Amino acid sequence: MKIKNICILGAGTLGSRVALQAAISGYIVTVYDVEQKSLDFSLATMQKLLGQFHKSGQLSKGQEREVLGRIKFTLDPMEAVDDADFINESVTEEADVKKKVWRQFGKIAPKKTIFTTNTSYMLPSMFAEDSGRPTRFCAFHFHDVFYSRVVDIMPHPGTDPSLIPLLEDLGRKLNQVPVTLKKENPGYIFNTMLMALIGAAGKLLTGEVASIEDIDRSWMVNFHMPMGPFGILDSIGLDTAWHVTHKMPDRASVAFAALLKTYLDQGKLGEKTGEGFYSYPNPKYKAQDFVK
Amino acid sequence: MKIKNICILGAGTLGSRVALQAAISGYIVTVYDVEQKSLDFSLATMQKLLGQFHKSGQLSKGQEREVLGRIKFTLDPMEAVDDADFINESVTEEADVKKKVWRQFGKIAPKKTIFTTNTSYMLPSMFAEDSGRPTRFCAFHFHDVFYSRVVDIMPHPGTDPSLIPLLEDLGRKLNQVPVTLKKENPGYIFNTMLMALIGAAGKLLTGEVASIEDIDRSWMVNFHMPMGPFGILDSIGLDTAWHVTHKMPDRASVAFAALLKTYLDQGKLGEKTGEGFYSYPNPKYKAQDFVK
Repeated sequence: MKIKNICILGAGTLGSRVALQAAISGYIVTVYDVEQKSLDFSLATMQKLLGQFHKSGQLSKGQEREVLGRIKFTLDPMEAVDDADFINESVTEEADVKKKVWRQFGKIAPKKTIFTTNTSYMLPSMFAEDSGRPTRFCAFHFHDVFYSRVVDIMPHPGTDPSLIPLLEDLGRKLNQVPVTLKKENPGYIFNTMLMALIGAAGKLLTGEVASIEDIDRSWMVNFHMPMGPFGILDSIGLDTAWHVTHKMPDRASVAFAALLKTYLDQGKLGEKTGEGFYSYPNPKYKAQDFVK
Repeated sequence: MKIKNICILGAGTLGSRVALQAAISGYIVTVYDVEQKSLDFSLATMQKLLGQFHKSGQLSKGQEREVLGRIKFTLDPMEAVDDADFINESVTEEADVKKKVWRQFGKIAPKKTIFTTNTSYMLPSMFAEDSGRPTRFCAFHFHDVFYSRVVDIMPHPGTDPSLIPLLEDLGRKLNQVPVTLKKENPGYIFNTMLMALIGAAGKLLTGEVASIEDIDRSWMVNFHMPMGPFGILDSIGLDTAWHVTHKMPDRASVAFAALLKTYLDQGKLGEKTGEGFYSYPNPKYKAQDFVK
């Protein structure tokens, strides 16, 4: 089958970025959300990104208009899925919300539609049955679409295997590098490794082995990377990190979750609140003398 | 005190690189080993590196000669430590060998000498007493000196704290970024985090979640890095990785050590043997289409 019409459920940051990339790649895109202010946010997010792409010479003003011309925003579920070949769901990361959305859209979507969830830490098998079409259901997970261009393709045990090559092809057309999981795994591939790195950094900190700065410095200098684990945590958001960490049973995770909680209680969630392990907009780790 | 004369014990790859950097930084360097062929290897290693620095325009031929003029090679322990202000020990990574070396050199080094070990996975407290001068003893650990320019400064509980600023200063003069540990930790800072990353990658592989290639791809593309965990493992050496992993008690490490052992048994130790997770000199992950 040929994918032409893409429907994005959930007009948050990631959903908006996926929608924009899909329109840049030439697809007809419909963005659905339950509130008008979410759709307004989505359009503003896209316009800001297009402004950056224009500035860096990636897209002309004419191309910008064409791209936006391929995107429709709607509060109407029927309009959202009308003739959709492919749905990517990016609604709130709560199981009950996702289940409800899939029960609703599973009923009204055309027979041909492929169902995918963009969940970060849940598993497609949690929603596949709710959609009413488990064989057509798979996880299709983006990172940030434009800088980190990996798309994870993660089937659940009931996914029709013939969907996989189709999704790999779509991933490439969306300018992503597809990676395919052989089985379900919370956190896919990259987040599993990233959480291990962050867990080790957290253990070094809570075990009072080294300072935040020296831990980041070690990573940055040895790997020539622009940030270390605590800078990465600030950009992910300390609330998200706590959300993942506080359920882990091992002693190091418990200690690190407790430390994260002290930041959360002070409203320090990282870059987005201006304060986390570092202070923004000019965190210490970006200073020239940090790695000297 | 002012450091002028540096003694390097052990003329292997890392010792030779530290010695060369010390001479480039203007220190008078003596390289000691027990076999002439090791000293010959050391000089050849340095000449190869100097050739690269000359080619890239970092050093002139005249400077090369000056640098080599500051380095002396010797099989004589007395000559090695004569007037040494600072010793960095890089002998074989075996506790008994290191203990023996420190018992020997602790007796003959001048009173002023600072003792440091460049061990990768052992702790300075294992050898401090053998040196006879535990307060003057500290770990001073390099990564690869020229690309990964972190030097770990790791005191044991008996190290005189006044040594630390002196070693931090020396680290900077050796063109490294010093990071200081507040207490002993096997693997220092960076290797602790790297082993956590590699452990998570190993678990994804032995758990049959994804392929070697897709695991590496996820890391490389999301972080814009030139290699992923299995590429890194090939460059570290699968024997070294097995050495560290096979002692860990958790189920994932046991499974990964068992997998590494199947490579070792076939003589596949990574880049140095031409075969590991990838084949060299042109591993798949370096191909242009690997991240497409």
